[in-house]
Amino acid sequence: MDQTIRMAIIGGDARYLDMIKKLNENDNLSMELVGFDQLDQGFAGVKKTNFSGLEVEKLDVVVLPIPGINENGMIDTVFSNDHIQFSEDWFKRLPNHTTIFTGITTPYLEKMIQKTAMHLIPLMNRDDVAIYNSIPTAEGTIMLAIQHTNFTIHQANICVLGFGRVGMSVASRFHALGAKVAVGARNPADIARITELGIQSFHMDDIIAYTGQCDILINTIPAKVVTEPALKELKLNALVIDLASKPGGIDFLYAKKRGIKVIHALGLPGIVAPKTAGEILGNIINQLIITDKK
Amino acid sequence: MDQTIRMAIIGGDARYLDMIKKLNENDNLSMELVGFDQLDQGFAGVKKTNFSGLEVEKLDVVVLPIPGINENGMIDTVFSNDHIQFSEDWFKRLPNHTTIFTGITTPYLEKMIQKTAMHLIPLMNRDDVAIYNSIPTAEGTIMLAIQHTNFTIHQANICVLGFGRVGMSVASRFHALGAKVAVGARNPADIARITELGIQSFHMDDIIAYTGQCDILINTIPAKVVTEPALKELKLNALVIDLASKPGGIDFLYAKKRGIKVIHALGLPGIVAPKTAGEILGNIINQLIITDKK
Repeated sequence: MDQTIRMAIIGGDARYLDMIKKLNENDNLSMELVGFDQLDQGFAGVKKTNFSGLEVEKLDVVVLPIPGINENGMIDTVFSNDHIQFSEDWFKRLPNHTTIFTGITTPYLEKMIQKTAMHLIPLMNRDDVAIYNSIPTAEGTIMLAIQHTNFTIHQANICVLGFGRVGMSVASRFHALGAKVAVGARNPADIARITELGIQSFHMDDIIAYTGQCDILINTIPAKVVTEPALKELKLNALVIDLASKPGGIDFLYAKKRGIKVIHALGLPGIVAPKTAGEILGNIINQLIITDKK
Repeated sequence: MDQTIRMAIIGGDARYLDMIKKLNENDNLSMELVGFDQLDQGFAGVKKTNFSGLEVEKLDVVVLPIPGINENGMIDTVFSNDHIQFSEDWFKRLPNHTTIFTGITTPYLEKMIQKTAMHLIPLMNRDDVAIYNSIPTAEGTIMLAIQHTNFTIHQANICVLGFGRVGMSVASRFHALGAKVAVGARNPADIARITELGIQSFHMDDIIAYTGQCDILINTIPAKVVTEPALKELKLNALVIDLASKPGGIDFLYAKKRGIKVIHALGLPGIVAPKTAGEILGNIINQLIITDKK
């Protein structure tokens, strides 16, 4: 019985190189790369091809770029000048059992799900991927905090807003570096966990009472939580780092008006640790393929 | 009885601004600044003056720049174009009880000690200052490690050489960030302490057996300890950070020949946290003056 899994990786950025290296450790996998023609580097046993050369009807797994497919059916290809455009027909040619990996889902992909039998896995939505990625995100935040202040993290007053997958990793690391951390949350279980870790907690309703002491304010909540009253209390030389995806959680206009330095830091894993970020994706895809096979 | 301590701060860099701010919290201190004429900023109650305007005979404390006085009797003045030159006569005009603070001692200062009654305190030689400064040094090392690698500190193999004042702060912080740290030392008490912290230890004689696994090698030992045999084992994409003062502890020539990236990171406290570095100096001087008075 043929145990070989046929995979096409179509487009992607620098992170995908270490993902491919990781996937290539899986002997049951036969990989083809599309959109990597300008890449000098090769991978033993992995074939580079072009979009029209793919035997679509034989693919078990397709890996799309992190941002998915845009409204015109197009994808980003960092390592190619080719314009790659998907169509409804292309998706209909895939076997019914095919799994499609993407970073995030898009309206175009949502439409394709409804029209075809394909199984779509938006990797960045997964809890495990978000938690693994929270490690390079937290390290990138530490780097920014050291670069953009003239004082040490040690003994600094750090407010972290939110205690989700990113907030927990960020708060515990700043705490480990000797900062005086206070975490704002709403969920009583989160407040309990923050306390268990030996970190100060507060309810988000009381945010205004805490921002005044902050040397660094780090937001992880994807909602406008840092509004004018909270910013008004902030020291003028405080640093604000917003880790929440667009549009972020800060009233940027008001912060600018007050002259407060705000860094909206997006995509830190790809910036500070592309190798680790790629390996995280490779590991998860490998796990999911094996689970699928069982 | 007049409890006022008359202090002159003569020259200095950006760190001295936060040192002056800290010293200015001491109400018993009357400060005069020399070599700060180009500084826009003022400090309440602190007088800026020029070198010839000082009433040398009345000074209780003199604070010199971190690098001390050079062989020609000159000092660095970052905030002035004046050339300030000391003489043996100048030092002889000081009262016998005067305390002189400098960062490091120099041959010129050593000569003056022998010829006058002055009491010289090289701050950077002090254990407490070195330990406080090891905090911004460790944070600067973390920043460099994040900036100059494409993987996370978390789960990376980090070798730290030396477990003195800097080595201990560096090793414990990388350990706290989830790295797999191994520390090389010689002293059995150091090996015991490393083990107590839950960190792997090895004897410096066995260094060659450890460098091969290193993703990041951090040296804190001020002696040529990382020689050709140790560098030969290192992965080509490993990062070497040398924190030992000049001439450092790495065979830089051989490392370059092998294409290994080496960062000789000196003066990190002044670079990543000048405010904290200045406050450390201000706190220590304040403590020493008060102790002197008792």
